[in-house]
Amino acid sequence: MAFACTIPAVATQLADDARVRITRWDFAPGATTGWHEHAMDYAIVFVTDGVMEIEVDGTVTQIAMAAGAAYSRPAGIRHDVRNAGAAPMSFVEVEMK
Amino acid sequence: MAFACTIPAVATQLADDARVRITRWDFAPGATTGWHEHAMDYAIVFVTDGVMEIEVDGTVTQIAMAAGAAYSRPAGIRHDVRNAGAAPMSFVEVEMK
Repeated sequence: MAFACTIPAVATQLADDARVRITRWDFAPGATTGWHEHAMDYAIVFVTDGVMEIEVDGTVTQIAMAAGAAYSRPAGIRHDVRNAGAAPMSFVEVEMK
Repeated sequence: MAFACTIPAVATQLADDARVRITRWDFAPGATTGWHEHAMDYAIVFVTDGVMEIEVDGTVTQIAMAAGAAYSRPAGIRHDVRNAGAAPMSFVEVEMK
């Protein structure tokens, strides 16, 4: 079950060209993306420190991330993301076409 | 002519998989990458604010960037990057395979 989506994370598209779509995500404390799945492989780059919770297939994982941390993920995995910290959290999502 | 490379920027590889190579770049004030060209299209995500100078074909452009700003560039353009600000500058480079 996805996180209770009381506060939606805010998505701001920064670029969308032939090669890539770049979106900044800003999360107030407790904010969530809502249940979703990427159609493209993507990378995440943290702009702030953050305590992120990710739910995949009913399993919730909490990860403390530092500003400048980054990782990549394949398309096609349904998940929900929540800011489990007490401070605002931001990351930039780079989706690769 | 590339910037005089007195202080090299520091590159830290964060990920390198079938789809993407992710590298964090940390620049002390005045630090430069040195003259280089990307073999892959790439995106840049700023982790800190920064005043960046880029030299392409002898033209130097200075750009003030905010943490969380991002852009994408195609492969194959020789350039040099310098931290023209008075504070350390960091960005994460996402190269797309």
